Amino acid sequence: MKARVHVMLKNGVLDPQGEAVRHALGTLGFDGVNGVRQGKVIELDLADGTSEDTINEMCEKLLANTVIESYSVEVV
Amino acid sequence: MKARVHVMLKNGVLDPQGEAVRHALGTLGFDGVNGVRQGKVIELDLADGTSEDTINEMCEKLLANTVIESYSVEVV
Repeated sequence: MKARVHVMLKNGVLDPQGEAVRHALGTLGFDGVNGVRQGKVIELDLADGTSEDTINEMCEKLLANTVIESYSVEVV
Repeated sequence: MKARVHVMLKNGVLDPQGEAVRHALGTLGFDGVNGVRQGKVIELDLADGTSEDTINEMCEKLLANTVIESYSVEVV
């Protein structure tokens, strides 16, 4: 089975990477870019039957820094 | 309008970050993790009416390195 985990900085946490992208898009002539947030996507190839609880545990323990990041799990 | 861009390394391109995550999950006692690929997700807050072509152009010019990365655009 495959699962996809999105890890994004929480709202209110400064995102310098996203800000750099926003600025660069403006420099390249793309108007109307009001905001950019950059996060991670992690695609896991797991043994069949792995529960969503286990995947959440992986996120809590390793994949996301839950102090500043939120995550969402999607089984695909 | 909001758009979400996923940027992943193409198949066959070595992904050391993903490999490190896979190894770390094993060390933490999670069995059955056969593979991990790590990519980027970029959330764009754009002016209404921005076309998907424009977003694709942003990807080609800045967001993805199309030599080794593939991208997908999702308007949300």
